[in-house]
Amino acid sequence: MGTKDQEPIFLLETNRIEALSDGVFAIVMTLLILEIGIPSHDAVASGGLLAELLKLWPKFLCYTISFVTLGVYWVAHHLHFYTINRADRGLLWINILFLMGLSLVPFSTALIGEYYQAKIPVIVYGANLTFISLVLYLHWSYATSGGRLIPETTDPGLITRVKHVILIGPAVYLLAMAGAFISTFVSIALYLVVNLAYILPGLHLHLKHEKK
Amino acid sequence: MGTKDQEPIFLLETNRIEALSDGVFAIVMTLLILEIGIPSHDAVASGGLLAELLKLWPKFLCYTISFVTLGVYWVAHHLHFYTINRADRGLLWINILFLMGLSLVPFSTALIGEYYQAKIPVIVYGANLTFISLVLYLHWSYATSGGRLIPETTDPGLITRVKHVILIGPAVYLLAMAGAFISTFVSIALYLVVNLAYILPGLHLHLKHEKK
Amino acid sequence: MGTKDQEPIFLLETNRIEALSDGVFAIVMTLLILEIGIPSHDAVASGGLLAELLKLWPKFLCYTISFVTLGVYWVAHHLHFYTINRADRGLLWINILFLMGLSLVPFSTALIGEYYQAKIPVIVYGANLTFISLVLYLHWSYATSGGRLIPETTDPGLITRVKHVILIGPAVYLLAMAGAFISTFVSIALYLVVNLAYILPGLHLHLKHEKK
Amino acid sequence: MGTKDQEPIFLLETNRIEALSDGVFAIVMTLLILEIGIPSHDAVASGGLLAELLKLWPKFLCYTISFVTLGVYWVAHHLHFYTINRADRGLLWINILFLMGLSLVPFSTALIGEYYQAKIPVIVYGANLTFISLVLYLHWSYATSGGRLIPETTDPGLITRVKHVILIGPAVYLLAMAGAFISTFVSIALYLVVNLAYILPGLHLHLKHEKK
Repeated sequence: MGTKDQEPIFLLETNRIEALSDGVFAIVMTLLILEIGIPSHDAVASGGLLAELLKLWPKFLCYTISFVTLGVYWVAHHLHFYTINRADRGLLWINILFLMGLSLVPFSTALIGEYYQAKIPVIVYGANLTFISLVLYLHWSYATSGGRLIPETTDPGLITRVKHVILIGPAVYLLAMAGAFISTFVSIALYLVVNLAYILPGLHLHLKHEKK
Repeated sequence: MGTKDQEPIFLLETNRIEALSDGVFAIVMTLLILEIGIPSHDAVASGGLLAELLKLWPKFLCYTISFVTLGVYWVAHHLHFYTINRADRGLLWINILFLMGLSLVPFSTALIGEYYQAKIPVIVYGANLTFISLVLYLHWSYATSGGRLIPETTDPGLITRVKHVILIGPAVYLLAMAGAFISTFVSIALYLVVNLAYILPGLHLHLKHEKK
Repeated sequence: MGTKDQEPIFLLETNRIEALSDGVFAIVMTLLILEIGIPSHDAVASGGLLAELLKLWPKFLCYTISFVTLGVYWVAHHLHFYTINRADRGLLWINILFLMGLSLVPFSTALIGEYYQAKIPVIVYGANLTFISLVLYLHWSYATSGGRLIPETTDPGLITRVKHVILIGPAVYLLAMAGAFISTFVSIALYLVVNLAYILPGLHLHLKHEKK
Repeated sequence: MGTKDQEPIFLLETNRIEALSDGVFAIVMTLLILEIGIPSHDAVASGGLLAELLKLWPKFLCYTISFVTLGVYWVAHHLHFYTINRADRGLLWINILFLMGLSLVPFSTALIGEYYQAKIPVIVYGANLTFISLVLYLHWSYATSGGRLIPETTDPGLITRVKHVILIGPAVYLLAMAGAFISTFVSIALYLVVNLAYILPGLHLHLKHEKK
């Protein structure tokens, strides 16, 4: 007991990982709105309430992009655990790294929403999303490599296909970050549009529903 | 595998959708209070603490309306999943859209609480609630249309009745938004009172409890 | 179907009520700390960091009282659902009213922490706690009255005993509110000490563990 | 009924304790980022956006340390409940004390992130972490002492080993607090590095997975 060779049997169930992750997703999604303050009485007195509200459009646009992107990652994370049926310490910590990436989103969203015409916030935002999706890639690779945490019957084609689908994200994010040198609107449009690849059924990963 | 015709078997269980949604509901309900700051020492020094607290009444009124309205939607969402017994990607994304509507409520509540005498906040608030209830309508229509995600034994009368009940909300919200052109107090009263249609037993939807 | 006499079979399971409530408890407990800001650089420059931190003691004291009080209510709510084994719409809405009382605690705590020497915040705080405990009393009475939502085998002595125990809270809160006219420190001490009645084993309600 | 000797059968299931705890962990982890505000327009106008973002490095460093440390405690708490298979009132309240320690982390992290060159914040931060880990030690000791809340078959060697592993934390925290008198960077480095003892597999506790 307590010897090194017992390590492989340190296996956990996935339900509390899913509970913690669902909690973080729900909170991050909901905190985004706190970064958008209502117009102050001073601003309203000089500019009028309607004008002040309309000025918030870049913040609401970035809010929408982040909310939808978080939705995409929540669905992806959800789907991973359709295949992954147990956890070890490695997966636990990759998951915590993933949650850390998520929890930075309110900061990077507030930054890009406030300074949407500057290159740096657009790059910071893209770097945040790239980090999240690369950790998600690692999450899947780690769990599936050598059948580590998945059923023996898992289709190898599925394993590869999921990897390819995850990499669409960072590929477009890199493009968007480069696009900032042309116009930050190009970048923001790409951050928005890439989500369609995950939402529209034709392009999405086709998974067979197999209850683990 | 991975071909288009597998799409229909991409079916999920509803428990993680409910977990994410409960999380968002709990957080939105609790964040509402953060928008009501305590009186500052400066204000208290000039006006007195009691007077400053009493000035907060419109914020507390709007807080109460939003809290109760969120309660109504939580109960409705809860009841939907008594009938809906599985999920596909469409439902997943309709649900995320629903959560996005919910997460805007702290903003629209802060706005109407601060500027309750102006038309625009009252209309923004109504538009927020209308959006949420129309997405809820879509949620139910999508799940029940052609028996997509419900048991075969579901009573068709129930399906129609739930639709009618959901539409009470947006009907009254539209009236309330129009009422803003008479007085914003008319609107605010309607936002409050409409919830009774969902809370009082006589008017409420009568559902048979059938465990799915 | 859909007729009035079906009303009695509108019965829910309690698990999603418990999930929403646990979410609200967890968020309220955690938001309390957000009301205590760290000292500003200006204040530190003039007064020194240690002095500025020590000035926060009333906020930390009130934070502690609220956290422990919320713990008491969480345990009580938890125990209620050991006996209550189903829910109807009435219980659902009493529970939402209970959560509304809880979600006001960050406001009333910030108020008493900032203005601990004034009577009004001490009374507002006590009124908030009294509201919560009276709704909890209602929760228990409603569920147990006529055996509405409890097993037939429930010990009638337990039903009465739980009622008495809940009423200790509001009795002491009223005393504490009256005490504010002598000294607000008397009130604050009572808010703290009353929790011992619920935490110390000798005075606490003795419940038999019966899995429902 | 209601007599003192019934006390030992006041036993709870652990699932709602775990749910409340997962909620608090998720919220604390996610609130940390709210303490890092984006640079103001005034600061950006004078210093430039990049320079202002780079100035945030101590806050992001402390954010990372706290996030990882919370991850360590979450894993530890998670593992405790692999062995602990029931709860009594004592455990309930030790757990609430543990959550109270966790919920202070956003405050102590904001403090050390803002005043990282001062001794006091470094000591406050260390005291916060020490409190949490001592309560965790108490949690384990209480549950395992005399086999109170664990299966009879639990390996006594495991009980001792877990105690030793928990105490690594406070030992290093004390060292780090003392280190503040040399340099606060020594302290901060120690707060970061100690987590490796819990993350790296070689040094970590080897637990046999036994479903309770």
